Amino acid sequence: MSDFSPHTSPLHKRYRQDRAMPEIWNETLDIILSHRSVRGYLPDALDPDVLPALIAAASSAPTSSNLQAWSMIAIEDHDRKVRLSKIAHNQKHVIDCPLFLVWLVDLNRSQKIAELHGEPSEGLSYFETFLVGAVDTALAAQNAMIAAQSMGLGSIFIGGMRNDPLAVSAELGLPSNVFALFGQCIGKQNPERPSDVKPRLPPEAVVFSEQYGFDQAALDAVQDYDARAREFQREQGMKEQDWTKQISKRVNSEESLDGRHTMREVLMQLGFGLK
Amino acid sequence: MSDFSPHTSPLHKRYRQDRAMPEIWNETLDIILSHRSVRGYLPDALDPDVLPALIAAASSAPTSSNLQAWSMIAIEDHDRKVRLSKIAHNQKHVIDCPLFLVWLVDLNRSQKIAELHGEPSEGLSYFETFLVGAVDTALAAQNAMIAAQSMGLGSIFIGGMRNDPLAVSAELGLPSNVFALFGQCIGKQNPERPSDVKPRLPPEAVVFSEQYGFDQAALDAVQDYDARAREFQREQGMKEQDWTKQISKRVNSEESLDGRHTMREVLMQLGFGLK
Repeated sequence: MSDFSPHTSPLHKRYRQDRAMPEIWNETLDIILSHRSVRGYLPDALDPDVLPALIAAASSAPTSSNLQAWSMIAIEDHDRKVRLSKIAHNQKHVIDCPLFLVWLVDLNRSQKIAELHGEPSEGLSYFETFLVGAVDTALAAQNAMIAAQSMGLGSIFIGGMRNDPLAVSAELGLPSNVFALFGQCIGKQNPERPSDVKPRLPPEAVVFSEQYGFDQAALDAVQDYDARAREFQREQGMKEQDWTKQISKRVNSEESLDGRHTMREVLMQLGFGLK
Repeated sequence: MSDFSPHTSPLHKRYRQDRAMPEIWNETLDIILSHRSVRGYLPDALDPDVLPALIAAASSAPTSSNLQAWSMIAIEDHDRKVRLSKIAHNQKHVIDCPLFLVWLVDLNRSQKIAELHGEPSEGLSYFETFLVGAVDTALAAQNAMIAAQSMGLGSIFIGGMRNDPLAVSAELGLPSNVFALFGQCIGKQNPERPSDVKPRLPPEAVVFSEQYGFDQAALDAVQDYDARAREFQREQGMKEQDWTKQISKRVNSEESLDGRHTMREVLMQLGFGLK
């Protein structure tokens, strides 16, 4: 669209590169591209219409075979948010946000439905079924993320629920075959704690035509991204470090998973077969 | 919003129940709620600006620790679409759509980045890292889904790529540690093959306050949904069957996974540790 200058366009913010803006632009694309991680929230209670809108958005996501293998818990209780925040290594925004959602892979409902028909539910104990549940849950949650942004709200997903799935399950009263995949803070962003769009890898590093082609040019594109990630870190007052160095630390070893190397065993303790 | 009648509102279409429309409505919520599975496509080539917009939308999704553990392959070649369609049990829309995307869990890029720094990448071989990749991939793809809908295009995810992951990997030249999670048809919907919004489970069956509470009332809400799902099937000329019966068949046994009961072993053949 002609009213974006190359340096302030949504695509430029997302990539920190001059890129032609698609002619076919619209408000929804603007909302999707403006996503940023919000960690500073005002305590203001949300309009009571927000939650029903988030739920309807989540329910509108695609779901494999219409299985709808997810559930969600909406949390406003202060003490519960404090306890969940501790599990998430003391991320304070889990307490500060007025609404905290926990997105659940839910195979329990399917099991109850099978029982209703007097049928076994052996298919739930396979890896594929857990995978379907995780994908269904992520698709639904991402719709809620875009919906929140469209209503002018800030949000962030909290993977830290996976730091201690057994503690989260106890806190939320989860039965067997239900797993808290991640949480989500929702609220009005504190204007004194603004955040900006984080640059991402350029298309050349992540998208291929016809066949996979992560070649030297793609690797070069990845390395060029280090400088743009540093620029963002500098602006946000974060510790500066090459993104590729961060990634190589993040995937380095069992220890670099920060306690989550036991996830498979933990999921089996939660009742998932993962066969 | 006052200009929706209870029987034609987006919420009514999604639930097939009279539900108060949230006062805070907007165009993006409309687009999210209007999602439907599109299986009939016009052969029309897409505007060349569509793909860059879809990619920028996908890249704008949240990603755990900014790992960006996904890639995507954009496919327009007819013969390749024919071969992929066969894998997806002959879903003809995979051939008919002008653009077919395959969404990849990609841990290969992280491995290459670790090699760049002369570091090991043992962390990639854990279940948790695969899970992060699957969630990252789903979040990115759902952004592309909403972006496509916002541009007036039809779309549908194709889980059938998982019918034979080894064949898909061979077709797309995927290296070790890359997995085709699902595909996505994109194109203009054939007006002679309209599709409608599929009703979903009501909020009472999937969303809980403060703690998990799938009780008898929630199970009743699930059973009430059977009639609404049947109504949709009837309208669409589909075979009529209670949704709860479909689900109990779908999760019944190893056989009901339609060959995907080997997913864990197949993923390990593709190089994932899943420890």
